[in-house]
Amino acid sequence: MVLPLIVQKYGGSSVADAEKIMSVARRIGRGRDSGVDIVAVVSAMGDTTDALIDLARSISPTPDPRELDLLLSTGELVACTLLTMALRTLGYSALSLSGTQAGIRTDTTYGRARIHSIDTGRVQMELAKGQLIVVAGFQGATEDLDITTLGRGGSDTTAVALAAALGADRCEIYTDVDGIYSADPRIVPRARKLDEIGYDEMLELASYGAKMHPRSIELGSFYQVPIYVASSFGDAPGTLIHKKPDENPSDEDPMEDRIRVTGIACNTNVAKITVRSLPDRPGIAAALFEPLAKVGMSIDTIVQNTSVERSTDISFTVSRTDLDEAVRQVEGVLDSIGATGVVSDATLASVSVIGSGMQNTPGYASRMFRILADGNVNIDMITTSEIRISCVVKEEQAQEAVRLLHHGFQLDQDP
Amino acid sequence: MVLPLIVQKYGGSSVADAEKIMSVARRIGRGRDSGVDIVAVVSAMGDTTDALIDLARSISPTPDPRELDLLLSTGELVACTLLTMALRTLGYSALSLSGTQAGIRTDTTYGRARIHSIDTGRVQMELAKGQLIVVAGFQGATEDLDITTLGRGGSDTTAVALAAALGADRCEIYTDVDGIYSADPRIVPRARKLDEIGYDEMLELASYGAKMHPRSIELGSFYQVPIYVASSFGDAPGTLIHKKPDENPSDEDPMEDRIRVTGIACNTNVAKITVRSLPDRPGIAAALFEPLAKVGMSIDTIVQNTSVERSTDISFTVSRTDLDEAVRQVEGVLDSIGATGVVSDATLASVSVIGSGMQNTPGYASRMFRILADGNVNIDMITTSEIRISCVVKEEQAQEAVRLLHHGFQLDQDP
Repeated sequence: MVLPLIVQKYGGSSVADAEKIMSVARRIGRGRDSGVDIVAVVSAMGDTTDALIDLARSISPTPDPRELDLLLSTGELVACTLLTMALRTLGYSALSLSGTQAGIRTDTTYGRARIHSIDTGRVQMELAKGQLIVVAGFQGATEDLDITTLGRGGSDTTAVALAAALGADRCEIYTDVDGIYSADPRIVPRARKLDEIGYDEMLELASYGAKMHPRSIELGSFYQVPIYVASSFGDAPGTLIHKKPDENPSDEDPMEDRIRVTGIACNTNVAKITVRSLPDRPGIAAALFEPLAKVGMSIDTIVQNTSVERSTDISFTVSRTDLDEAVRQVEGVLDSIGATGVVSDATLASVSVIGSGMQNTPGYASRMFRILADGNVNIDMITTSEIRISCVVKEEQAQEAVRLLHHGFQLDQDP
Repeated sequence: MVLPLIVQKYGGSSVADAEKIMSVARRIGRGRDSGVDIVAVVSAMGDTTDALIDLARSISPTPDPRELDLLLSTGELVACTLLTMALRTLGYSALSLSGTQAGIRTDTTYGRARIHSIDTGRVQMELAKGQLIVVAGFQGATEDLDITTLGRGGSDTTAVALAAALGADRCEIYTDVDGIYSADPRIVPRARKLDEIGYDEMLELASYGAKMHPRSIELGSFYQVPIYVASSFGDAPGTLIHKKPDENPSDEDPMEDRIRVTGIACNTNVAKITVRSLPDRPGIAAALFEPLAKVGMSIDTIVQNTSVERSTDISFTVSRTDLDEAVRQVEGVLDSIGATGVVSDATLASVSVIGSGMQNTPGYASRMFRILADGNVNIDMITTSEIRISCVVKEEQAQEAVRLLHHGFQLDQDP
């Protein structure tokens, strides 16, 4: 008999001490008792990762990425063995596996490695023996068995990738928030918890401020893994991220069913770089962005001003942590591309309106701009996707902008 | 050009904090600058291993050995990555390797695994690139890549085994003592540091109280790896453990050259178990000791009393930590072997006189017994090897016995 298989992920705050680890073990045990196979993925306990980074910095201001990855990987190993011991203490048959042992193979981009493949042989063999499996999140190994870490959102990525590779029925992400909200409840007290959300919507929310990292959502979407996000500290219902039935509404659907915005996102980790007076000829943008791509930097919004007298300005946003490196890279090519200078601004934020119901439906953008204008919020840059409209604004106005939009799009009210 | 190759091992107290790690890195760097290849093996920082065991016990009073091994292995990984970062900070090219990556394959006896083989491919490849290599001690992996630890003295064993497998010129053990002494200097203030000692002598010293674990000495002896023991905190000369020219003296050597005892050892981790009234027939000893062997327990001294009326007593010693388990095992076979009972005593110690010069030379045993008798030290059990005579005595008399023997065998004086 094949039992349903669920991959569960527990974040660092859920396993911060022995008591919390026992509590997580009991939750896994209840799932087991209800007749499912479970693969649990854990992050490092509490602030372990930060403590290890501090330890490394006490030796070297710029620790070697390969060494740092092997160092950081120990945090998840500790949590994963302790959770396994807790399960065994409760009388369950359980086994811990490092990322290497769980067959997670990555490229060699230390610090933010990407998963190449997962050899699920060992996990499946142990599941067949009736074991509960606990896998160390956030880590993998190269073909040479060098340990890598997956970077931000790494444990979520481990969980969703394992769920996909194992063909799990769903992936459950247990964390210190109890689901996905229509906006950050700390900013908008009347924000509502969503019962469900589509992958694309969640991807935009995640990219633009929500707590989950977009990587795992992308993976979940690609492999159609339903992802359930809930609190590890209670039994309140969470949010299911899946392919919503109405994600691609037909024109025959009543308009009222698809006009709603799903949520408002806010990202304060935004810095803008403007490169001045570029010659307006082919190849310039490529020459500008290639060095940034080479160091693996994510560029967000890119805006190119209308050309004036054969020269142009290009502005783009990066995360603030990447700002210094981005400026260094751009300065390295300034001369060769013939630009006159580069300026940056790290006091910005982006606010986004997200909803799959918006696609192909006019009027959302103008309504957003009107709401912000009425609230005296100035817009610095604008980008749109099929299901998102984002405005870059001054950081000091961002929270007010979110509240205005949440109210203006009637998200305060029950659907 | 092939550089000389040295394997260095640094214990937990040598890498207890960032400052000490930098100091170890500078020592390795000086070695490198002098033109040698170096593979460094490190233990976990300070009390890390104990802290991890406490953490495990906060979850489970009897942690699963497999899980505990994976947990404990993280301590050495942390130290090994930090030392590598320190070397890189000093400008050296350096690389850390876990036990798994260093090719150390063991059996599956979690908690005290034995090394099956070492695949030195990766280490040699990295040495060929001119890297300094830092290997996490105390750990290996099974064929399934499950992590094992090597038990007591594990990092020393890693170092000597690597030195043997790599054909290193020597293995240097840096620790918090500055060499091997003729007796424990805390007990005998006039104890002298030895410049050199033979493998067999060191093996007896290690088995009977010196700080090194006998496993690594056995390995060193078998593969003829010279082992240099010195302090990691200074440059005082240490002790070289190697094949002493006079380890097998011929009868033609002047007697005075071989009469000296090398050292006095004292082991307070001794418990005695006595099995009463065993029937005196073949197979009884086997039936008694087989269950102990099966759980991997080391038995030391065994004494069987003269048979009286076809029944006999057998006494043997084990380490105190193994006493409860040993009694349990013996009780399990009491009925089947027809013994009437078992008693134990955990208040004993063994004192030993060690020296390769003693072999085939009469008079040492009687001189030892005379010295102890004159000091009113009662002898409970006696065992001898070719180069050692040991007496089990009351623990409260052990230190005095060591002082008496050190003086009586003229070890207080310069050779």
